[in-house]
Amino acid sequence: MSVKVAINGYGTIGKRVADAVSKQDDMKIIGVVKTRPTSEAKLAVRKGYKLYVAKDGAQAFKDAGIDVAGTADELFRAADIIVDCTPGKKKEGGTTGEDYLKVYRELGKKALFQGGEKHKLTGLSFNSTANYSESLGKDYARVVSCNTTGLCRTLFPLQEAFGIENVMAVMVRRAADPYDSKTGPINAIEPEVKVPSHHGPDAQSCMLGLNIQSMAVKVPTTIMHLHQLAVKLKKPATTAEVLKVWEAAPRVIFVSTKDGVKSTAQVMEIAKDLSRDRADLYEIAVWKDGVNVVGDMLYYSQAIHQESDVVPENVDCIRALCGLEKDGKKSQQKTDKAMGIVKL
Amino acid sequence: MSVKVAINGYGTIGKRVADAVSKQDDMKIIGVVKTRPTSEAKLAVRKGYKLYVAKDGAQAFKDAGIDVAGTADELFRAADIIVDCTPGKKKEGGTTGEDYLKVYRELGKKALFQGGEKHKLTGLSFNSTANYSESLGKDYARVVSCNTTGLCRTLFPLQEAFGIENVMAVMVRRAADPYDSKTGPINAIEPEVKVPSHHGPDAQSCMLGLNIQSMAVKVPTTIMHLHQLAVKLKKPATTAEVLKVWEAAPRVIFVSTKDGVKSTAQVMEIAKDLSRDRADLYEIAVWKDGVNVVGDMLYYSQAIHQESDVVPENVDCIRALCGLEKDGKKSQQKTDKAMGIVKL
Amino acid sequence: MSVKVAINGYGTIGKRVADAVSKQDDMKIIGVVKTRPTSEAKLAVRKGYKLYVAKDGAQAFKDAGIDVAGTADELFRAADIIVDCTPGKKKEGGTTGEDYLKVYRELGKKALFQGGEKHKLTGLSFNSTANYSESLGKDYARVVSCNTTGLCRTLFPLQEAFGIENVMAVMVRRAADPYDSKTGPINAIEPEVKVPSHHGPDAQSCMLGLNIQSMAVKVPTTIMHLHQLAVKLKKPATTAEVLKVWEAAPRVIFVSTKDGVKSTAQVMEIAKDLSRDRADLYEIAVWKDGVNVVGDMLYYSQAIHQESDVVPENVDCIRALCGLEKDGKKSQQKTDKAMGIVKL
Amino acid sequence: MSVKVAINGYGTIGKRVADAVSKQDDMKIIGVVKTRPTSEAKLAVRKGYKLYVAKDGAQAFKDAGIDVAGTADELFRAADIIVDCTPGKKKEGGTTGEDYLKVYRELGKKALFQGGEKHKLTGLSFNSTANYSESLGKDYARVVSCNTTGLCRTLFPLQEAFGIENVMAVMVRRAADPYDSKTGPINAIEPEVKVPSHHGPDAQSCMLGLNIQSMAVKVPTTIMHLHQLAVKLKKPATTAEVLKVWEAAPRVIFVSTKDGVKSTAQVMEIAKDLSRDRADLYEIAVWKDGVNVVGDMLYYSQAIHQESDVVPENVDCIRALCGLEKDGKKSQQKTDKAMGIVKL
Repeated sequence: MSVKVAINGYGTIGKRVADAVSKQDDMKIIGVVKTRPTSEAKLAVRKGYKLYVAKDGAQAFKDAGIDVAGTADELFRAADIIVDCTPGKKKEGGTTGEDYLKVYRELGKKALFQGGEKHKLTGLSFNSTANYSESLGKDYARVVSCNTTGLCRTLFPLQEAFGIENVMAVMVRRAADPYDSKTGPINAIEPEVKVPSHHGPDAQSCMLGLNIQSMAVKVPTTIMHLHQLAVKLKKPATTAEVLKVWEAAPRVIFVSTKDGVKSTAQVMEIAKDLSRDRADLYEIAVWKDGVNVVGDMLYYSQAIHQESDVVPENVDCIRALCGLEKDGKKSQQKTDKAMGIVKL
Repeated sequence: MSVKVAINGYGTIGKRVADAVSKQDDMKIIGVVKTRPTSEAKLAVRKGYKLYVAKDGAQAFKDAGIDVAGTADELFRAADIIVDCTPGKKKEGGTTGEDYLKVYRELGKKALFQGGEKHKLTGLSFNSTANYSESLGKDYARVVSCNTTGLCRTLFPLQEAFGIENVMAVMVRRAADPYDSKTGPINAIEPEVKVPSHHGPDAQSCMLGLNIQSMAVKVPTTIMHLHQLAVKLKKPATTAEVLKVWEAAPRVIFVSTKDGVKSTAQVMEIAKDLSRDRADLYEIAVWKDGVNVVGDMLYYSQAIHQESDVVPENVDCIRALCGLEKDGKKSQQKTDKAMGIVKL
Repeated sequence: MSVKVAINGYGTIGKRVADAVSKQDDMKIIGVVKTRPTSEAKLAVRKGYKLYVAKDGAQAFKDAGIDVAGTADELFRAADIIVDCTPGKKKEGGTTGEDYLKVYRELGKKALFQGGEKHKLTGLSFNSTANYSESLGKDYARVVSCNTTGLCRTLFPLQEAFGIENVMAVMVRRAADPYDSKTGPINAIEPEVKVPSHHGPDAQSCMLGLNIQSMAVKVPTTIMHLHQLAVKLKKPATTAEVLKVWEAAPRVIFVSTKDGVKSTAQVMEIAKDLSRDRADLYEIAVWKDGVNVVGDMLYYSQAIHQESDVVPENVDCIRALCGLEKDGKKSQQKTDKAMGIVKL
Repeated sequence: MSVKVAINGYGTIGKRVADAVSKQDDMKIIGVVKTRPTSEAKLAVRKGYKLYVAKDGAQAFKDAGIDVAGTADELFRAADIIVDCTPGKKKEGGTTGEDYLKVYRELGKKALFQGGEKHKLTGLSFNSTANYSESLGKDYARVVSCNTTGLCRTLFPLQEAFGIENVMAVMVRRAADPYDSKTGPINAIEPEVKVPSHHGPDAQSCMLGLNIQSMAVKVPTTIMHLHQLAVKLKKPATTAEVLKVWEAAPRVIFVSTKDGVKSTAQVMEIAKDLSRDRADLYEIAVWKDGVNVVGDMLYYSQAIHQESDVVPENVDCIRALCGLEKDGKKSQQKTDKAMGIVKL
């Protein structure tokens, strides 16, 4: 019997989670909530998803000729678990994560949130690699953001293998997603003046006790974030030993400038060549020839596909909360197999 | 029995044609020629394509751990038809389209070329909508470029329905493809000082006698070309009549700013939401609310996915040259069905 | 005796007009109105401009340590003429051009507005080349936008010399100004679906009876607009004759790809090499080798520096409204000499 | 009596150094060497610089109607010192820094090179703040690159005041200069896979013994580099103490997001508002509200104007090599006064 999943917020993450859940055999999408009758909404219906809207929202959809199955409330009631993909930064007067959590709680439904929400909302931050078991059977969790997911994917295996003394991470962030033609900058670099940026503390929410400092900067690109990392290991390691650890780590792949992969542009081309859905790349791409050990320091560069790396984590998180699988590694393998995620 | 197709040049167009041909039931890929052992080459092998290389090129592939099936020459001999996707603008000393045509001719093989080559190379320029039948059973043809394909897709149906007095086309061209991180500009607009740009004469190579003038300009984006068109029709037409013509036209879709599709960014998002392979959009996207009839003039805006709109035309062209199907419309329908191209 | 000029709105245009007016010997800046205590405000004070603020705005400036000379109202009363450089598109609830016109009228002050306002606000649209004399001694005028100024600069001389049958103009617009790091798109092209775009009718407001059609498209660059123009002349002209006309035209310069000027990037570099203030380019740059006469059609490409081409027109407009100079050509020469604008 | 300065290579740096030298009273430009008859060459002549060309290069300039004063060799013989601004990365077969050094040496001329050359070329790397006195009276020096200059400007005062245990620097580099419309990427981030990037060792060439690690990444912008820095100080310092040190440091200014300076876009606007020549910013801009002390670590963000920060250093270096001024601070003050560089 499949777990019934509702998606609240069918946008960048929501639509991807919907498709990923649909590929699993132990869960299914029973409907998605959409607020505006956009082109995206039309294509959701075309794909076979049932659309649910806010109580007073149906008319706009009707006007646009889009079929509506019911209200968001009706959908939530019918679901076993709700994947909340509503935007983290709510506009003035908008519904917040707290508001929605209250709704889900009153209906007695499990729910998972995205990294736009704060850790304290659920008190439980989730990453498949770092702390799957902590969410087992719980009611609420937050799947950490794309950047934090990227940090956990490569740092957790390092910590397990060698121990980490400290980490300095600089996140070079894409300024807008590919579908977004409103947001800039077109020609500028914008530093985050707050140190640490939210990424360090967020990584700590999944990897307790990690000594990490993070700075962030926003740049005019739409396709990927890039992390420059300096890690002081507790136990000395060679480059080869580090590579071996990541070879065995889930959802981490290697790329190399020697194969012509010089930038995030060629990394995303790999996703296309793999015929991944929406040309997404669920894995963190580490430059193999950018892994440098200097004394007790490890330096490396990794690229993060901001729209999709958290998608398999959402699937795993559903499985953890609903208790469908106790072993995190097995959940990851199951998810990956269904989504076509295989080590390159 | 399937026609045996060889791809010479497994790059942006070549790899897409390979995948499209593989989806048809009357043709198959017997191998692809690749010159450098890049990440793209590795993924080709992973996909199951046999790699053929230049006579002296095998060692570099071996060094990179990539299996090679033989030489380009061996592949060409085994093929019924060769799809030449080698770059149009050859570097100094490189092999040109003329050189390759000679090779194919000596081997007695049919071949089709891409729009980077000039019309005079084959004397026959191909567009599925405009002039399929002219290529029927011929030995050599050139599938016109992405921009010219875009012009033919919307102008030919207009010419059929209303007659065209003249066309003024301004092509706002993307400066680089998404995988290309070398080419700029990053922050400039570059006009083509030659008038007409090559696009007008190229459209005439498929639509004889078309009275068209074209200007071009290059802008810092990687995802689509955009055409601004002013067409003087011979027979007056209303906006509704024009829309009706394009509704019936192959490989033309409508988008609308009213659905949130304000730019090429949202157009490409549609391709993702349609789960098209490599997130490609084979159709020309016309802004429905940008179709304006003022007196006897028709103004409209259309977006062209430079990497993929010619891909179904390549399939049709193989069919025409090999005489697999006499009726162009039927070939288009067959191609489209196999590739999942359906009217939105 | 100098005309006393107040600047209402010390932003992109306002600060440039302030500097340009300061260089003239028949007018002077008595103060500028600024709404927010930004870095720009600090630098205005540093430059010696007196800052005036809204009635309730002084505290914020004091808190930021910026000296304020008084209220906007006080400044307006002391002025002979007000250059209104407040944003054309007001946010909800904000003061509009109509509101300000009422204020100026009640104070009995002359005023000129910018191209963000509509023609009907003043009923008089100004361009130095096209219609200086029409504004002579009038109380209110609107200096047309940067794009419209660009159109008038090259079209009016053509009309005088050869007559114009019709014009098709495609404006490839920069999406944001260089200081603006908020606005996108980063990687998309956005067509204006309304035809004509506002530029055609705006050009007609200065050049009555001009038969012009315009389309617009927004692209990810910050430095210049680019126009692609097709003009049907009444009297046939050779390329040489057209060039001769523009050689004599004010505020038009030639650039050439043969000198390495291939894009707007190199055009702006010329402004730097000329040591122009703020690296501005007040002239319209026409590609000399992009001027093509084909039959009775003239095709050309021109680049427009959106931040500065209207600045000398503002100076001329002050002179026209205040009746300081009856002859538009003489005003232009006086303005240009003071600002260092000389034919290349 | 003025020192006679020749500029070899009138490009991005060369033309700026020429203008800066022209503003000093103890040195003057006697001519500049240009290789191609571009728009830049025409404007050099217009500015009054005498153009010298390679022996076989005069004809191309004549054809373009540009006056030539003589050959590069003649210019070098007449000079006291040569500022070599030829490109660091020479194309195959081109003249290298080594070749030119030999020429200068044979003529018995002093010379200074730019940061594109390696330290070993002259064995002496120059930064006005860090090591002026070391170059005093020497024959040859290299002015370090824009990024390294930026590092020295803020790190040296820290070292003097507090001592530096170690530095981790991530340089987010602009991919192309504003005049360059050829180079990309348009939409990608490119990591430097070599660690350390050249910036760390380069900083050590001016600040012996500095313990610094550096990583670099290239992003699609043209206007400034941005550094994210983490510095472990030997002596604990408060944020206020750090700010005080930089307030006293030459060619360092503060900007703040509180004044609206959120990115490099607004930093460059300041240079425009200061009416700096070519809208250049010679100073390093440090975000005042981005200076964060956490324990014994100092984190900060700084922006570097790649085209101009080394220009005053070139002037100082001429002064040092020619022994015009023994005190580096006095040279800096003299240079700054002449160039209008004042603390904000």
